[in-house]
Amino acid sequence: MASSVRSQFQQSISLPTLRAYLAEFISTFFFVFAAVGSTISARMLTPDVTSEASSLVATAVAQGFALFAAVYIAADASGGHVNPAVTFGLAVAGHVSVPTAIFYWISQLVGATLACLVLRVASAGQAVPTTGIATGMTGFGGAILEGVTTFALVYTVYVASDQRGSGRRGGLAGSVVGPLAVGMVAGACVLATGSLTGGSMNPARSFGAAIISGDFKNQGVYWVGPLIGAALAALVHQNLVYPPLSSASDSRHGEAVVV
Amino acid sequence: MASSVRSQFQQSISLPTLRAYLAEFISTFFFVFAAVGSTISARMLTPDVTSEASSLVATAVAQGFALFAAVYIAADASGGHVNPAVTFGLAVAGHVSVPTAIFYWISQLVGATLACLVLRVASAGQAVPTTGIATGMTGFGGAILEGVTTFALVYTVYVASDQRGSGRRGGLAGSVVGPLAVGMVAGACVLATGSLTGGSMNPARSFGAAIISGDFKNQGVYWVGPLIGAALAALVHQNLVYPPLSSASDSRHGEAVVV
Amino acid sequence: MASSVRSQFQQSISLPTLRAYLAEFISTFFFVFAAVGSTISARMLTPDVTSEASSLVATAVAQGFALFAAVYIAADASGGHVNPAVTFGLAVAGHVSVPTAIFYWISQLVGATLACLVLRVASAGQAVPTTGIATGMTGFGGAILEGVTTFALVYTVYVASDQRGSGRRGGLAGSVVGPLAVGMVAGACVLATGSLTGGSMNPARSFGAAIISGDFKNQGVYWVGPLIGAALAALVHQNLVYPPLSSASDSRHGEAVVV
Amino acid sequence: MASSVRSQFQQSISLPTLRAYLAEFISTFFFVFAAVGSTISARMLTPDVTSEASSLVATAVAQGFALFAAVYIAADASGGHVNPAVTFGLAVAGHVSVPTAIFYWISQLVGATLACLVLRVASAGQAVPTTGIATGMTGFGGAILEGVTTFALVYTVYVASDQRGSGRRGGLAGSVVGPLAVGMVAGACVLATGSLTGGSMNPARSFGAAIISGDFKNQGVYWVGPLIGAALAALVHQNLVYPPLSSASDSRHGEAVVV
Repeated sequence: MASSVRSQFQQSISLPTLRAYLAEFISTFFFVFAAVGSTISARMLTPDVTSEASSLVATAVAQGFALFAAVYIAADASGGHVNPAVTFGLAVAGHVSVPTAIFYWISQLVGATLACLVLRVASAGQAVPTTGIATGMTGFGGAILEGVTTFALVYTVYVASDQRGSGRRGGLAGSVVGPLAVGMVAGACVLATGSLTGGSMNPARSFGAAIISGDFKNQGVYWVGPLIGAALAALVHQNLVYPPLSSASDSRHGEAVVV
Repeated sequence: MASSVRSQFQQSISLPTLRAYLAEFISTFFFVFAAVGSTISARMLTPDVTSEASSLVATAVAQGFALFAAVYIAADASGGHVNPAVTFGLAVAGHVSVPTAIFYWISQLVGATLACLVLRVASAGQAVPTTGIATGMTGFGGAILEGVTTFALVYTVYVASDQRGSGRRGGLAGSVVGPLAVGMVAGACVLATGSLTGGSMNPARSFGAAIISGDFKNQGVYWVGPLIGAALAALVHQNLVYPPLSSASDSRHGEAVVV
Repeated sequence: MASSVRSQFQQSISLPTLRAYLAEFISTFFFVFAAVGSTISARMLTPDVTSEASSLVATAVAQGFALFAAVYIAADASGGHVNPAVTFGLAVAGHVSVPTAIFYWISQLVGATLACLVLRVASAGQAVPTTGIATGMTGFGGAILEGVTTFALVYTVYVASDQRGSGRRGGLAGSVVGPLAVGMVAGACVLATGSLTGGSMNPARSFGAAIISGDFKNQGVYWVGPLIGAALAALVHQNLVYPPLSSASDSRHGEAVVV
Repeated sequence: MASSVRSQFQQSISLPTLRAYLAEFISTFFFVFAAVGSTISARMLTPDVTSEASSLVATAVAQGFALFAAVYIAADASGGHVNPAVTFGLAVAGHVSVPTAIFYWISQLVGATLACLVLRVASAGQAVPTTGIATGMTGFGGAILEGVTTFALVYTVYVASDQRGSGRRGGLAGSVVGPLAVGMVAGACVLATGSLTGGSMNPARSFGAAIISGDFKNQGVYWVGPLIGAALAALVHQNLVYPPLSSASDSRHGEAVVV
């Protein structure tokens, strides 16, 4: 709370936090690998990718399953953010310090970019698919849809990380079912907006694909929408629906959020 | 039990219940967003939506995943009804007071309508798909199918909320797996009746789409079937298969049902 | 153990057992409704049902999700068999008495038949799809595949019902994840054999559809294969892989198996 | 630790280890049956298998669901490896002795081969699909993709088996959600690389299909990639992200890993 920027920065490069950054790197690499790889694999089977709902199912299921696992394997080390928007939402509500958030972002963006690079190189030059907006839609409309879906994602992360144990669910349901709920929310949102915005909800996924493909069109949509949605989710969860019982119990949120 | 309508109404506008209404609003908004959005996204990929089973898979998986998450994130605040038929079934069995049920309904209907509005506006005018009955079927047949599937949904909600802990499953399985089972029942039912009635089981989902699209054809089917199915599920669960052990343990059901 | 047939029969019509039969009826009705309904819904979207893998996905996911829920909602009342082959496997290993097994079978067959009847009547005469064998395959080959998949299903039911708590998993994992594992096994097996035998693994599902459609072709395959597979699963589980620690702990299996 | 090869070998043929080998045989048989069978069933519905994303969804969901169940049913008897690469990764990190690992490999390879044989014989000669590399890709690129996906799989196995209970997740989440996370990782990876390498991650799956079909083309890719990926996952998990708290707690890993 009262720590200076300097001490915050020093805390951000301790051994546990270095492990957290590595965990974020691994999980984001894997999640983006699954998200982008599944789009590539589905497109190879259905050349005209805009005319097959089964391609949508393929990438949505891949992202739902992969995000569940990515959150699960990083949970104890880093809290399992796997997404700059999640980290931003937690930073806004004060659960992650700014220097730590910056290192999380770097880990996530590098992991996502490397995943796209590996897919491009190993697949002998398949084009890396970027997230884009449907014909006729505005960037503003795209940002709203990305914001709404990221709100649902980050709100679920908050519920899953709620360790206060005051309700009937207590900490147990959070620790056991939480990562699964986070993954399934993502899968549902990809199905809902896949044809409209590509269903990103994750600036790292959109950024990595843009870097490797060299196509940054509408990149702003995938940052503005998710970051605002994530911040709103944090505020609504903490202040309106599940206000903290006391400042002591609130502090239990800590750095590692999911699980 | 012996409270007058006036005191019931006063209890219905306390701070915890206001939080419950907000939680129902958020969860129903998100669930209907996923249900309607996935139908839009699948249709954009498969223009002739009546000829592709993968569109059915897309919307069924979206609804299964989304309902799991919607119940999970609202469970501690409102019980996670996310559906006027669920609220009705609980009111019939006396677990929710009538004034509270009315506020739940309002929250759910507003959330569903707003979800359809956001999708329509942000997607630059994609038509909002309503639930409809297959050619050749009668409204009575449609109501039966909606009633059967809603029976399964609400019966599962009751099992998931069973906190008596007298069996081997106890309260734990309810709290951990309950929301998942509710979501999977919904997904299975959408697959079973998707081509026959649209697989609604949720008056709010059908109502919101009807308001925004202006098409109220067969709207009654999606109220009569689900409400009767929900009431029967409550009665069969409480009186025949899992009768309460004692009135004391029964009262533990309380307001918040799932989890 | 030493009870006469008469006393066994009397135990089979007590109040708890009547509840168990009702629970089996409800769960089998719902499972078969989802299995047959999803095949009808997918076929209506893809008239030439033999040329679309998405139809296979639709019915497999429906059966996986529905069986999870059907086992879950019946578990505390009846053990959640939802399948005459499961009941048979448990009877062979001595965990269910013969009179009780007979009443379970009747409940399951009536539930399955009624589900097919409701679908036919309410859908204005859509043909009820039966399970059949692929062109070129023999009934013997079909029985082997049905036997192998039912072995996997019943073996999973046994692991899920293992309450001995001697291992690291203990009774907890069984009670929480058991019904989910049973449902996922069924979904995987439908995907594996759906085009070869229809992926039944459940005599009630094949029988109900045969009664309502009047087509009993190869009906024997769907009884012989599953019943032998179920009996082998019981014997291998109990005698080879997970032998009981002592007769005392073994008796804990009791009537209600899953959960 | 200090046991000689002779005593290690003797420990490898005790009664509990014989049960473990049988459990590995059953689970690998079932998993490969689902993986190969689902590819056959999907291909029969979609003759031109290279042009349908729904075939990819079918086999990915089958493998995800089947691996979850296969790990779950073997967990208490053998640790639920179900994959020579998983066994290799555990042997590299010293959690499984070399003689035991060899018997595990034999059980897995025999189970996988028999599953392919049963499918071929019972289906009246449907060709058994092998895993192959997409046109234009090199074996090296294929090995990289198989290595990356197996890394994710084995890393998740390690997290799921982490019984130290030092974090908030403790041993409970591992025991309850672990097998599910392992299955979902596999499903996501099949979706990501299905059109590029066939998404094997499992030398037994590739070996069994090669034996029965007689086509060993690129077989090396499916051994080199997964084995290196598995070893790296073990090393990164144990040494970098989740280093053991003490040698005493580390030894709790033992033989049976997943649970």
